[in-house]
Amino acid sequence: MNRIKCIISYDGTLFNGYQVQPNQRTVQTDFEKVLTKMHKGIPIRIHASGRTDTGVHAVGQVIHFDSEYALQPEQWKRALNAQLPKDINVRSVEIVDDHFHSRFDVVRKEYRYFIWNEKDENVFSRNHHYFFPFDLNIAKMQEALECLLGTHDFSSFCASNTDIKDKVRTIYKGSINKTDQGIVIALEGNGFLYNMVRIIVGTLIEVGQGKRDVKSVKNALLARDRAKAGKTSPPNGLFLWKVDYNN
Amino acid sequence: MNRIKCIISYDGTLFNGYQVQPNQRTVQTDFEKVLTKMHKGIPIRIHASGRTDTGVHAVGQVIHFDSEYALQPEQWKRALNAQLPKDINVRSVEIVDDHFHSRFDVVRKEYRYFIWNEKDENVFSRNHHYFFPFDLNIAKMQEALECLLGTHDFSSFCASNTDIKDKVRTIYKGSINKTDQGIVIALEGNGFLYNMVRIIVGTLIEVGQGKRDVKSVKNALLARDRAKAGKTSPPNGLFLWKVDYNN
Repeated sequence: MNRIKCIISYDGTLFNGYQVQPNQRTVQTDFEKVLTKMHKGIPIRIHASGRTDTGVHAVGQVIHFDSEYALQPEQWKRALNAQLPKDINVRSVEIVDDHFHSRFDVVRKEYRYFIWNEKDENVFSRNHHYFFPFDLNIAKMQEALECLLGTHDFSSFCASNTDIKDKVRTIYKGSINKTDQGIVIALEGNGFLYNMVRIIVGTLIEVGQGKRDVKSVKNALLARDRAKAGKTSPPNGLFLWKVDYNN
Repeated sequence: MNRIKCIISYDGTLFNGYQVQPNQRTVQTDFEKVLTKMHKGIPIRIHASGRTDTGVHAVGQVIHFDSEYALQPEQWKRALNAQLPKDINVRSVEIVDDHFHSRFDVVRKEYRYFIWNEKDENVFSRNHHYFFPFDLNIAKMQEALECLLGTHDFSSFCASNTDIKDKVRTIYKGSINKTDQGIVIALEGNGFLYNMVRIIVGTLIEVGQGKRDVKSVKNALLARDRAKAGKTSPPNGLFLWKVDYNN
């Protein structure tokens, strides 16, 4: 058996998220369908670094699977891209050690969130940003983001419908920049809870609007109570940007 | 009556072109539906600078219509954008002279065509470029484009199923540039025949691949025969960029 690691990108617009669900179009379903066909009907399961929700995109999602085929990385890439739908693309392939696991071995993840903060919507990138035409004080948002860096219990910034007990996570880096593609909020951490990036972004937007101050973000974090943080921002602005492993 | 001129952009991906067609989603149908609703059921007809085909986009299409309402330009813009679907956006509104006509008064049009000339597809802009992963000699393409500038009978660069008799047009400017968004071919002229930009692009791509030389493009132009020019390139790379009027 050969273990294959792929870095893939996908446009989440037309998927019901990453994970297999009955009677839904998902990234995992489409990818496994192609692999199973390549393996003459033998079901092949893929494992990702983590799920992404409906409408969320990936520039650098990482998956792995096992195969009896001894293809070269470039052959895998070509064979997969020839059969995958147009909204999934395999960017690179690596043959890895049998012990590699795309989820358990993650050491660092980066997410980026795009806000189109202009008076007019951009029809061409409308599925790839959150259109927010109101004034935002970016300096204030940056100040609020500072409070969230480091190791904290992020219970307040996690969707309430989750089973995970340990809600301590570390955000190594966070930045907010105005670019041609809009305001980009980039977060790097050792892991992110369910909806964590979108709740952080929603809270920062409330700070940028002047609806809450920096102190209230600090208080929200300490409260460990979802109700104290801001709204969950829409999925279509969110990109799983990069997943890092030790090696 | 007030004559209203609008500059609009639309993502052509989910439309069956600009022009009204029975039982099809078109830009004109959607726009007129909103206007008719605003006018309490009185049908309002819009007039564009020209049609665009299925899958073709517009950054700066121009339309006009007549209305009894005496709204300010900003009020029109807000009212229309609030009701239009997300893939149509009104960029600006102007109250114009009763004699203005969005089609008859055009003096210059610009189209841009985007070619994603990379080894890997970009899933996020896949509907807004032509993915062409093979080598292209841009210098040769530029040389071939030069032959097409100026005033010519463009019969060879016009879809054969057209009623138009006079196929003489003037291309004022043409350029090919490599940018972050791919190779951009920009053409400005006094008017373009049916499929003209897409046939020019298809022919230039054949030059870039070395499948034909610059001289064959010159010969194709002189032949006034559609069969002598290259293939029609796909619609999704094409954008109606700008329409100019005298005033």
